Amino acid sequence: MVALFLLTGVTGRSQQSSDEIVIGKIFNEALTSYEAWHNLEWLCKNTKGRICGQPQAAAAVEYTRQLMEQMNLDSVWLQPLMVKSWDRGEPEVARIISEKFGTIDIASCALGWSAGTGENGLSARVVEIRSREELKSKTKSDIEGRIVFFNQPMKQTNINTFASYGEAAWQRSSGAVEAAKLGAVACVIRSLNIETDDYPHTGITRYSIDVKQIPAIAVSTKAADRLSGHLATDPGLLLYIRTTCTERPEVPSFNVIGEIRGSEFPNEIITVGGHLDAWDNSEGAHDDAGGCMQSVEMLRLFQKTGIRPRHTVRAVMFMDEEVAQRGGAMYAQMASEKGEKHIAALESDRGVFQPRALAVTGNPEQMKKFSAWKFLFDPYNLTLENGGGGVDVGPLKKYYPDILFMAMLPQDSRYFMMHHSAHDTFEQVNRREMQYGAASIAALVYLYDKYGLN
Amino acid sequence: MVALFLLTGVTGRSQQSSDEIVIGKIFNEALTSYEAWHNLEWLCKNTKGRICGQPQAAAAVEYTRQLMEQMNLDSVWLQPLMVKSWDRGEPEVARIISEKFGTIDIASCALGWSAGTGENGLSARVVEIRSREELKSKTKSDIEGRIVFFNQPMKQTNINTFASYGEAAWQRSSGAVEAAKLGAVACVIRSLNIETDDYPHTGITRYSIDVKQIPAIAVSTKAADRLSGHLATDPGLLLYIRTTCTERPEVPSFNVIGEIRGSEFPNEIITVGGHLDAWDNSEGAHDDAGGCMQSVEMLRLFQKTGIRPRHTVRAVMFMDEEVAQRGGAMYAQMASEKGEKHIAALESDRGVFQPRALAVTGNPEQMKKFSAWKFLFDPYNLTLENGGGGVDVGPLKKYYPDILFMAMLPQDSRYFMMHHSAHDTFEQVNRREMQYGAASIAALVYLYDKYGLN
Repeated sequence: MVALFLLTGVTGRSQQSSDEIVIGKIFNEALTSYEAWHNLEWLCKNTKGRICGQPQAAAAVEYTRQLMEQMNLDSVWLQPLMVKSWDRGEPEVARIISEKFGTIDIASCALGWSAGTGENGLSARVVEIRSREELKSKTKSDIEGRIVFFNQPMKQTNINTFASYGEAAWQRSSGAVEAAKLGAVACVIRSLNIETDDYPHTGITRYSIDVKQIPAIAVSTKAADRLSGHLATDPGLLLYIRTTCTERPEVPSFNVIGEIRGSEFPNEIITVGGHLDAWDNSEGAHDDAGGCMQSVEMLRLFQKTGIRPRHTVRAVMFMDEEVAQRGGAMYAQMASEKGEKHIAALESDRGVFQPRALAVTGNPEQMKKFSAWKFLFDPYNLTLENGGGGVDVGPLKKYYPDILFMAMLPQDSRYFMMHHSAHDTFEQVNRREMQYGAASIAALVYLYDKYGLN
Repeated sequence: MVALFLLTGVTGRSQQSSDEIVIGKIFNEALTSYEAWHNLEWLCKNTKGRICGQPQAAAAVEYTRQLMEQMNLDSVWLQPLMVKSWDRGEPEVARIISEKFGTIDIASCALGWSAGTGENGLSARVVEIRSREELKSKTKSDIEGRIVFFNQPMKQTNINTFASYGEAAWQRSSGAVEAAKLGAVACVIRSLNIETDDYPHTGITRYSIDVKQIPAIAVSTKAADRLSGHLATDPGLLLYIRTTCTERPEVPSFNVIGEIRGSEFPNEIITVGGHLDAWDNSEGAHDDAGGCMQSVEMLRLFQKTGIRPRHTVRAVMFMDEEVAQRGGAMYAQMASEKGEKHIAALESDRGVFQPRALAVTGNPEQMKKFSAWKFLFDPYNLTLENGGGGVDVGPLKKYYPDILFMAMLPQDSRYFMMHHSAHDTFEQVNRREMQYGAASIAALVYLYDKYGLN
């Protein structure tokens, strides 16, 4: 009895400290490893421009498949799906033609899935619109035959830059449709960039089946300021734009999945993912090769620190986040068809900067339990918040209404300078920050797998 | 009476919310301004290499003086002091000469104030030392006539990278003396860089008057790994080093000071500073032009948001932080001689990355009052901690034992990759992060000026 009592005593104490020890091991391993970062470099440099449907996306699929195959996981597989395909064509031209200011080429790029202007391009006078309210005040007679220039800047004063993105993104996603409804011949938007520089930022634009599909481009924030300034002095100036984008037939592609099977609940699944596709003008380092590599790194950290999870833990490289989100939809649908039980999911798609917080979408009872882990994350300067989810894991909610979404929230000051632009390169990723994020995710998944939040 | 009562009521309510409003204004102004960042660019690009005693340092003095002169402050002045002067000379050579591996030049730089090797350089066999303990185990017979190679890496697993710097910095500051005591002919250290790359990092090395002044250089972390690897296979290899550094006569220089005079307590002073000097191989963007520009920006934010402080608030660009810290010593001495009363001081010299926390060196009672400001900083994702101080403001403690030190603590993952190297450039500074830091400092000083912490 004495021996047993002592043993329990020791176990009781070490139970507590064992979590601190395991999390310490996770961080130690992550902060001293260069593996995920080197893999990130490979992805960024060799599959640059891997928008879905392009060969670079196929290379990224095969690279991450091979990467996980070499890791001695319990299972690695490809989940087929069809994706849309689009080609940017020749370098875009956007040119101010003004009697007052002369002819000035400005930095531009077609928005994703934009129609082209045709070989000859088009030119027209410009109507500048700075807000949804201003758009509402416009009629056909203001817009017909013109180019609409949406110039609502991303608000710099929001502390959460994702909120600024949310407020301004309507211009890119629905600007072309709204302009076309009023008879515009093309749509130009100010890049969704929180800083003033000369990188144009692309991203998906959405057409409506019953509205004419007019060409849509983004100009850099500097170019937008210039165009706006020149319009103020010379409202009659012309803008010439030329794009040769074309949509192509759909092609087969894949989600790439690797897993460590759960020792107790192999059919109960925790998904950690990022998206493998990236815009065609970008290395997509922060958006989102970094998130993919953090997901794979989480599995490596489990292996390296000897964590055998009770539930199945997966790293998923989703395809087609940027365009039609078919990867996320397919993943959820297949999960349901196979009878899997999905208990939690985390998507790293906010950049791989220094993590600031961890979050879960818990009810008050769950948040209370979550906050009991605070002492485990305080030493790592991580706060605990309510929140989570992501474009690719979102569809799981349809089949698993009780699923817990989790999140790793990085510092977001730099993200929207790079997002969807040629500025989003490997060089912008700091190894330590990325690994800090991977360790944070691994620690959170470790605790959730061990204790749950119910 | 009723009117008065209402007025008091309103004041009572608006007192609370007025702080939130003022801090909101500070952040709004900071996050939308490019002024400090453009000034930073000027300093980085036009006074690169501004180690004290060099002409670039004089240019930096004059630039920041003019900058503050244009701001309509209550007073701007130069505080004269004499500084040491040293010249790096010709580009350094560090060359492995091995029968097994051939002749390999590795990236190196002389440590600050190192003696030169002379025109012909020197070569010798190498003794690698990886810790203080290993150094203690060595005798003259191990070291005599050799080059000592200090190769203790900065620990990557500390969450606080400044702790890693503290643990490893002995190699740079006292390695040369310790090696010389045992008869070494030169001292080579692994760069104090938390990452593995090919930038050599300099920094001050200190000689002792009674010990032979042997040449001391740093090699990049990559070069250190290479040298260590080659030594393991070929312990008899030679290292050739050549430096032509020379010390020069002392020259006059200055601290640059600007202030807004206190409306109630003009002789009670709150100092916010950075150091203007930077290493001669560097733009010194994060170390510490950024801190200087944040200090000036704090005054601009006060002006722009209409804050008239009760106490005098100063921005101080200290000279000679990197070498002999005479700027800080002179500032404190002059304060005392003039009969000023210094109540608080903050130094921004930890990089100008995204701020993570604010701190003060309060006693328990003061920390309690400080923590009552938590709700004001929570919306900005800033935690409140105990800590503060800095190399340049430190000497104030000698004359003002009750002075409160404050700090703005940025994310530190990236700092020691850049510190004292050619990697510390303007391009590594994100405008929003730097401005976020300036706003955080201004908000803290605003509250301390208004309420104190006693």
